[in-house]
Amino acid sequence: MSKPRFITFEGIDGSGKSTQARLFADYLSSAGQDVVLTREPGGSPGGEEIRQLVLTGDPQRWSAETEILLFTAARRDHLEKTINPALEAGKTVVSDRFADSTRIYQGATRGDLRNMVDQLHSLMIGREPDLTFIIDMDPAAALARGLARQSGEDRFEDFGLSFQETLRHGFLGLAHANPERCVLIDGNRSPEQIASEIAAHA
Amino acid sequence: MSKPRFITFEGIDGSGKSTQARLFADYLSSAGQDVVLTREPGGSPGGEEIRQLVLTGDPQRWSAETEILLFTAARRDHLEKTINPALEAGKTVVSDRFADSTRIYQGATRGDLRNMVDQLHSLMIGREPDLTFIIDMDPAAALARGLARQSGEDRFEDFGLSFQETLRHGFLGLAHANPERCVLIDGNRSPEQIASEIAAHA
Ligand SMILES: Nc1ncnc2c1ncn2[C@@H]1O[C@H](COP(=O)(O)OP(=O)(O)OP(=O)(O)O)[C@@H](O)[C@H]1O
Ligand SMILES: Nc1ncnc2c1ncn2[C@@H]1O[C@H](COP(=O)(O)OP(=O)(O)OP(=O)(O)O)[C@@H](O)[C@H]1O
Ligand SMILES: [Mg+2]
Ligand SMILES: [Mg+2]
Repeated sequence: MSKPRFITFEGIDGSGKSTQARLFADYLSSAGQDVVLTREPGGSPGGEEIRQLVLTGDPQRWSAETEILLFTAARRDHLEKTINPALEAGKTVVSDRFADSTRIYQGATRGDLRNMVDQLHSLMIGREPDLTFIIDMDPAAALARGLARQSGEDRFEDFGLSFQETLRHGFLGLAHANPERCVLIDGNRSPEQIASEIAAHA
Repeated sequence: MSKPRFITFEGIDGSGKSTQARLFADYLSSAGQDVVLTREPGGSPGGEEIRQLVLTGDPQRWSAETEILLFTAARRDHLEKTINPALEAGKTVVSDRFADSTRIYQGATRGDLRNMVDQLHSLMIGREPDLTFIIDMDPAAALARGLARQSGEDRFEDFGLSFQETLRHGFLGLAHANPERCVLIDGNRSPEQIASEIAAHA
């Protein structure tokens, strides 16, 4: 693979995306690359403002379709303000989540939305990552980690293990359908073991 | 034309859309129809929240594409929360502006955006009005009305007469391309004369 420049981390909740994105960005930096570590949601001030609209107030007031439009608007801003400028300056961009998360999460909620998300992506975002690490693991084991971290925001409790199973299969299907950019990573190991496998793809 | 139910008013700034939408809604009501008069922006609380994001703070912080996504999200909310429920309840909906405004205003700013707006509309909105009144008039005459009303928000001053000329031609082209739903109305007359011509289409 010739110098991937826009790299994303995807996977179910608690699978270790943020941990590995940080370790990988550190690794690339120490190897002399100019790296921008970013994330969704939150990778640009405007994108974050848009997400706040979805996250604050009564969440039931938006339909799934309106939410998808708002997420896409936030992603467009993230791309324009953070990702593209960094790539144009010759930097490597590592993003903790990107469009695949919307594909899999919204698609898991209602099957017919997956196609809408894909079409909206082609029309308004266009860009796919050069390389995507999909961290795969058993939802129950990820849940145990989540409980250990006690962060207060317990998405597992909100959605349940069976929803996480659906997401897991969504991410596996995505990796299978996009072998040219997706690398499946076994998340059931120590952070260091996983990081060294990922570093081998740099 | 068999009982149009979703009716919109379009045209350049100050052409009399709000005046005529109100008069037409009153006319239909007095003829015994159950009418909902709505408008963009502002036709639903969620839609208005989304617009506020564009209208408050530094307007330069959004690209044209992100703005189009936000406008489409606001319109989707307006459609779901206000327009569709009214139509399903058998009411007639009269809207002061709708998707044509985005087509013409964004298209006038940058030609390549018109196609994007159209595709986004097909994908996420889908619905066209059954009947659209396009009020046509000379921008200079509309400007004179605007000055007379002294409302404080002077979009003419912001954009200038030549931008209004571009919009006018955009709306004329739209009427020409969509004769099955668009009726061109000469706005250079008294409100009562215009209203009685419009009433003849009810
Ligand atoms: N390989 C690992 N083994 C054990 N614990 C881990 C491992 N990787 C991460 N953790 C811990 O598990 C928790 C979740 O990790 P992390 O936040 O990286 O996951 P995430 O996929 O980013 O989660 P979220 O979906 O909530 O953003 C953290 O407490 C983290 O320290
Ligand atoms: N036919 C008319 N003749 C003269 N003045 C008019 C006529 N119709 C409306 N006006 C006046 O012109 C001004 C603009 O009218 P109106 O607000 O209905 O236009 P509009 O198209 O809704 O404008 P905007 O694009 O700003 O929303 C108002 O002060 C209104 O009273
Ligand atoms: Mg994380
Ligand atoms: Mg008006």
